[in-house]
Amino acid sequence: MSKKFVYSFKEGRAEMKKLLGGKGANLAEMVHIGLPVPMGFTVTTEACLDYYKQGGKISDEIMAQIFNALEELENQMGKKLGDKNDPLLVSVRSGAVISMPGMMDTILNLGLNDESVKGLAKSTKNERFAYDSYRRFIQMFGDVVLEIEHDKFEQVIDKVKAEKNVDMDTDLDANDWQKVIEQYKEIIKQETGKSFPQEPKEQLVMAIEAVFRSWNNQRAKVYRRINKIPDDLGTAVNVQTMVFGNKGEDSGTGVAFTRNPSTGENKVYGEFLMNAQGEDVVAGIRTPKGITELENVMPEVYKQFINVCETLEKHYKDMQDIEFTIENGKLYMLQTRSGKRTAQAAVKIAVEMVKEGLINKNDALLRVSPDQVVTLLHRRIDPEAEVEVLAKGLPASPGAGSGQVAFDPDESEELGKQGKKVILVRMETTPDDIHGIVMAQGVLTSRGGMTSHAAVVARGMGKPCICGCDAIKIDYEKQEFTVGGKTVKKGDLISIDGSTGQVILGDVPMIEPDLSDEFQELLKWANDVKAIGVRANADAPDDAKTAREFGAEGIGLCRTEHMFMAQDRLPIVQQMILSETLEQREEALAKLLPIQQKDFEGILEAMQGLPVTIRLLDPPLHEFLPNAEELITEIAELKQGNNAKELEEKREMLKKVRALKELNPMLGLRGCRLGLVHPEIYKMQVKAMIKAACSLAKRDIKVKLEIEIPLVGHENELEKLRQLADETAKEIIAQEGVSVDYIIGTMIELPRACLTANEIAKHADFFSFGTNDLTQTTFGFSRDDAEAKFLPYYIDEKILPDNPFAVLDRKGVGSLMKTAVKLGREVKPDLLIGICGEHGGEPSSVEFCHDIGLNFVSCSPYRVPIAILAAAQAQLKNQR
Amino acid sequence: MSKKFVYSFKEGRAEMKKLLGGKGANLAEMVHIGLPVPMGFTVTTEACLDYYKQGGKISDEIMAQIFNALEELENQMGKKLGDKNDPLLVSVRSGAVISMPGMMDTILNLGLNDESVKGLAKSTKNERFAYDSYRRFIQMFGDVVLEIEHDKFEQVIDKVKAEKNVDMDTDLDANDWQKVIEQYKEIIKQETGKSFPQEPKEQLVMAIEAVFRSWNNQRAKVYRRINKIPDDLGTAVNVQTMVFGNKGEDSGTGVAFTRNPSTGENKVYGEFLMNAQGEDVVAGIRTPKGITELENVMPEVYKQFINVCETLEKHYKDMQDIEFTIENGKLYMLQTRSGKRTAQAAVKIAVEMVKEGLINKNDALLRVSPDQVVTLLHRRIDPEAEVEVLAKGLPASPGAGSGQVAFDPDESEELGKQGKKVILVRMETTPDDIHGIVMAQGVLTSRGGMTSHAAVVARGMGKPCICGCDAIKIDYEKQEFTVGGKTVKKGDLISIDGSTGQVILGDVPMIEPDLSDEFQELLKWANDVKAIGVRANADAPDDAKTAREFGAEGIGLCRTEHMFMAQDRLPIVQQMILSETLEQREEALAKLLPIQQKDFEGILEAMQGLPVTIRLLDPPLHEFLPNAEELITEIAELKQGNNAKELEEKREMLKKVRALKELNPMLGLRGCRLGLVHPEIYKMQVKAMIKAACSLAKRDIKVKLEIEIPLVGHENELEKLRQLADETAKEIIAQEGVSVDYIIGTMIELPRACLTANEIAKHADFFSFGTNDLTQTTFGFSRDDAEAKFLPYYIDEKILPDNPFAVLDRKGVGSLMKTAVKLGREVKPDLLIGICGEHGGEPSSVEFCHDIGLNFVSCSPYRVPIAILAAAQAQLKNQR
Repeated sequence: MSKKFVYSFKEGRAEMKKLLGGKGANLAEMVHIGLPVPMGFTVTTEACLDYYKQGGKISDEIMAQIFNALEELENQMGKKLGDKNDPLLVSVRSGAVISMPGMMDTILNLGLNDESVKGLAKSTKNERFAYDSYRRFIQMFGDVVLEIEHDKFEQVIDKVKAEKNVDMDTDLDANDWQKVIEQYKEIIKQETGKSFPQEPKEQLVMAIEAVFRSWNNQRAKVYRRINKIPDDLGTAVNVQTMVFGNKGEDSGTGVAFTRNPSTGENKVYGEFLMNAQGEDVVAGIRTPKGITELENVMPEVYKQFINVCETLEKHYKDMQDIEFTIENGKLYMLQTRSGKRTAQAAVKIAVEMVKEGLINKNDALLRVSPDQVVTLLHRRIDPEAEVEVLAKGLPASPGAGSGQVAFDPDESEELGKQGKKVILVRMETTPDDIHGIVMAQGVLTSRGGMTSHAAVVARGMGKPCICGCDAIKIDYEKQEFTVGGKTVKKGDLISIDGSTGQVILGDVPMIEPDLSDEFQELLKWANDVKAIGVRANADAPDDAKTAREFGAEGIGLCRTEHMFMAQDRLPIVQQMILSETLEQREEALAKLLPIQQKDFEGILEAMQGLPVTIRLLDPPLHEFLPNAEELITEIAELKQGNNAKELEEKREMLKKVRALKELNPMLGLRGCRLGLVHPEIYKMQVKAMIKAACSLAKRDIKVKLEIEIPLVGHENELEKLRQLADETAKEIIAQEGVSVDYIIGTMIELPRACLTANEIAKHADFFSFGTNDLTQTTFGFSRDDAEAKFLPYYIDEKILPDNPFAVLDRKGVGSLMKTAVKLGREVKPDLLIGICGEHGGEPSSVEFCHDIGLNFVSCSPYRVPIAILAAAQAQLKNQR
Repeated sequence: MSKKFVYSFKEGRAEMKKLLGGKGANLAEMVHIGLPVPMGFTVTTEACLDYYKQGGKISDEIMAQIFNALEELENQMGKKLGDKNDPLLVSVRSGAVISMPGMMDTILNLGLNDESVKGLAKSTKNERFAYDSYRRFIQMFGDVVLEIEHDKFEQVIDKVKAEKNVDMDTDLDANDWQKVIEQYKEIIKQETGKSFPQEPKEQLVMAIEAVFRSWNNQRAKVYRRINKIPDDLGTAVNVQTMVFGNKGEDSGTGVAFTRNPSTGENKVYGEFLMNAQGEDVVAGIRTPKGITELENVMPEVYKQFINVCETLEKHYKDMQDIEFTIENGKLYMLQTRSGKRTAQAAVKIAVEMVKEGLINKNDALLRVSPDQVVTLLHRRIDPEAEVEVLAKGLPASPGAGSGQVAFDPDESEELGKQGKKVILVRMETTPDDIHGIVMAQGVLTSRGGMTSHAAVVARGMGKPCICGCDAIKIDYEKQEFTVGGKTVKKGDLISIDGSTGQVILGDVPMIEPDLSDEFQELLKWANDVKAIGVRANADAPDDAKTAREFGAEGIGLCRTEHMFMAQDRLPIVQQMILSETLEQREEALAKLLPIQQKDFEGILEAMQGLPVTIRLLDPPLHEFLPNAEELITEIAELKQGNNAKELEEKREMLKKVRALKELNPMLGLRGCRLGLVHPEIYKMQVKAMIKAACSLAKRDIKVKLEIEIPLVGHENELEKLRQLADETAKEIIAQEGVSVDYIIGTMIELPRACLTANEIAKHADFFSFGTNDLTQTTFGFSRDDAEAKFLPYYIDEKILPDNPFAVLDRKGVGSLMKTAVKLGREVKPDLLIGICGEHGGEPSSVEFCHDIGLNFVSCSPYRVPIAILAAAQAQLKNQR
């Protein structure tokens, strides 16, 4: 038997989406459950692929199946395509597997020709309607199938209206439309060299081919690229009996959602227009009415409509997005599909449907996209607000903020203290600017990437930040920036959206984060289901508190260097770095010790005995020093003056900055390398941690400390530093005379660490994947440089499917992680393994971590709920 | 049966080295083949390890075995230790598995005490000799066993000589020595609180323990660290009957090599001293005589000695380094071992021994260390010359050179043109300095690592270079540098040795590279044996020619960027980089095209149809631009003046330099990323290659072109660029109308490329491992930064066994390479795979490449012979 390329609606079902496309499968499903659907058939996606395989030709076999289906439809309807008396008319619509609204083509009223139009007039007793329908058909056919410019047809109507001296299409009568039709046919003859096809079957085949072709039109291709839809799916084509919402005042058309897609409220939501076709609604000339008003207009139809909605929800067990037409008082369903919804609605609908008994908790968990709920966790710009977007930069830290522009961190601090809202705008930030960032609503920089100083600091503080927005040209001297033609001065109001990267002029309405009761409930269910632990990355007691409130089960990464950046510490840190002798350095470290101890006490206390991983100093030391280029400028200027002392000091500083300068600091003297070359630094940090733990122990506060050694590539590095940490810890514990629970482990963030994880595991109580660095080294990408210079190009051009710093690269980075898990657990079967790179809060990466058997993921406090939901989904997908 | 810890010389054999140490095993072997050896026994290395295991104590079991062996020896010799009439005397010497000359301790004349010394006087009829021997024993015992300062003893002798008013030890008689002995005993009593032990067995045990202890003395530990000898081998102890070379004019002692260890000449080489003990030779008071003179002094003994030499060479099949003593006209052999030799001698001896039928060709190949022959390939400083070393930097490019110091590249060029020899001394070099480097004998920089500009350029040109020599402080203004207390001015003569990193004051005698006939022959044998191909990395026709002369079978890496650096091209390259529009860029590229084409023609022609891999542009573009810091200084200075135009130009340049600046250029916009973002650059390069190939094809010159795409991490990168290259090539070939043989492949230099080699292989005709970059990313080490900041520390502290940029890291980098080979050949079983990182010329890395089945290694032209030899050895080791 030959392959089936055409299915009547009676033959299909919802689960045949891949073959019939979304629209076709759902039309068939509605027929199956007895809803009123105009009959028709679907030409499959496989027919579309075959069309392309044949070089743009429908094979004889498929052609035959189409004509068979048509004949069956004609028999069923008791009408014939092109009939002189009462012709069958059909619509020809695309229907892809994954919905691509508006991207592909549609032809209505097919089957009309110079003869059948008369039949239509006769049978409807409405000549105007018949000729209007015919001209609409020719116009669409000319546009879509014959690819004649749309304007050419519109100009004809304008001319006819002008001749008749009227404004509206409704002012034209049957005669006028006949005139229009004659001129349309003329245009077609001129443009294609052929007459408009009168033979309905020819029309049908040409229309189907045009829909197939529209799969590869420019806008469809772009849409697929943006939405990551594969190019090789093809589209199905639905041929369906026409029903008309424009047959008079007892006809109409509308669209609706079975619940409110914005709030999730369980109430039908939508709009309709009487005596109109779908395109009239789109055209926007007449204002549609709210769906509930239909009850007043046609109470019976409304009742039937509400029943249909309920049936659909019960059947699909989800909120539906539907299209319908009323023809002479009779309701027809033209489309149903799962409705798009806001995050807030998604959560509410899922939770309420569980309560209604429509779905179970697991279904509900799978219904809400973790990516989408991000918006619920941060303040955001009201999507309804009209805003003037000035520029777009990198979305470096999510959330939104408004305030007056300040270019100087001192000024930002000053204004902040006065209670004013400020957005700090800088080319880039340095540790010297921290006090200005602290008091600002958000940060905007014209340079630097997702790991630039501004980005890292802002994320740590939970403040919105946009980086690398190179469209804005900052002039510090004039205290203004220009963008496009606009100039924004110091004190002007702007808003930034760190989730999208948009810089907006003026103040804009914001929506505050919304952890609704339903959301809390959903998270509770997720927590019950998930297998992998969720921790948070937090560097300060406040962050730790936020993390616990969001449901974190521990701190997976506390970065001690962020504590070094604070304004009151930086001078001591610089003193430590610039020390000429070990004695000087130890003196500076002694000053840092009580400060760090206090920090650690705060975090450990906030977590109340939950595990807290504290990482020893990681970044290269020159990150804490002034910028060399600035120093050079200052020196050059000082040379002209008389201040010999200051000149000498600056020269001295420059010398040291240069001595510490590295060509590729990411791969230089940092992490455990620093700890090995300058053991006194790590020693101080371990002392501070253990002293903090001891002090809490004395107050009967539980502590679970995990000391983490970063950037290990060879087991010897860990062995030496573990010994140093262990000895230091034991010494302090002996001094303090209390017992403290601590373990020592390592970040796994270098390919070599993964490849030799069996050796490294011998010296580690735990592993934590640092997938930011691991991605950098596996790809050989410096994140800052890549995101600024070529990653956007790579993603646009589909060279890479995703930004690997956002979505974990399973084939490369993931393969190394799998190796590390395998080798590590060969040596220690119960080895605790987590991930603390930014991927720890990205849903598909969380799923991967679940799949390869990690014990926990750790992410920014604000992403903890996302990770919890993603973890639950991973577990459920695994079970299914 | 209990374990055997003590072996008599009759029981041992040469192959028991691990147990008996080198000296003990060879003494036993000599006994076995019937040579005259004073009898004795060896306490094993296992006994030493047991001594440490017991916490520094010889176990009863071992003690019993020692005394048994001693008894046996006494029986055999018919003498007893400590005998009053004719006592047995023994030496106690260390003997490690791997020779550590002078590092551990020796005690002679053991067995003497207040009684047996009289017996010795009696039996030798030489009272002076007896008491001299006794005082020597006490002195050594005091020093070595009792750890009393050596000087204390020497002062006694000086005092006695002063009292007697004589100068020489030989002026002291038996009475004097007796006085000395009394005072020695007094010193021991004072220093240790105990009397000098009179019981010979106690002396023996204490001496053996002292030798065991000396395994862990400071100088032995340092020696092992430097020479990478494991710490856990332990030393054996040899207890041997004393023979005396100082018993009169018919006695003597000497050392000799069976062939000349410096030239390899097949003639006994060595020296001897009559009436002397070994320590007298070392003391250097009397001048030893050449070994051949022994024929005149004692013709019979000499004849016997020559026979022994021949026997030893025939038996060991290698040149021997021997020690002997003549006692009253009788020859005794005290040691034999394989002799250390220069590279030149190693080659000559190996080849001649094959001709003499002593060994076969394969043996000969295994006899010559590839590391050692490096010295034969470069001009070097005469090792005999006395030199004043000013400082030591990184040995960045091997070879040696002398010349007058020039700080300015223009001056270097000028002097070079005048035929003068110049060493260019700079803080660091940039592309602007190339013309000065070209005309210099060598380059010395105070900053930068093994991959700095100076290093890379000098290696490419085969010129000596020392980098990162931060001990020298350069003052450009004064045109001088200071180092230690010394000042070296412009025009002063210095010499540099780029193989060792030594900077030397003045001109010094040099040895020219020496590719002797024997070396050529050895290489021929190596070529016959080896399985893996050896290619060279060459960027210019001259290099290619050198490579072929050295035996390269192709070019494995031609770096096109080095061509960009030449002085006549750099301005065009800068123009290309700074172009504002694609048109401007293409204009600059059009100028570069004919230049690159000429370069490629030269190299392809030089290789006459052997394969030539040409890599498309790899480094980040800003490497070709001026330095930002210098620009800033210039701008600051210009601000003070009136030249507004120049100021504007510099500002413009700085803006562009900044726009191209990257935080981690090693991981930034370079390699194929550059080729994807700016396809016009790669297009020009492919055009130039194919045009070059076509032009040669027209002249009937064979060409085998391999186009290489660098830094691929994802198959899509290669797929796109392969297509670009293929299309460009086909276009040119069609234009030129000749057929050209080319293939397209990729560098494998990122972890992700290794992990997804199966996907990448689909688009590659060949792989070439770039192990420099692969090592950088696998370890997360920036080579420049690591070598400057922490790698030396890591190697000193044994955190890493070797510099992974010199010796391939098998566990990390090697494991990725194995994965890549396996995955690549799963897709394409015959995939051509090579290596072109610097490891390609390092012997142990070559062995690894052979073992994992690579098709070729590629290295600097001057390392080709080394690689050939290493490749042959790998093959032979594999067969054995």
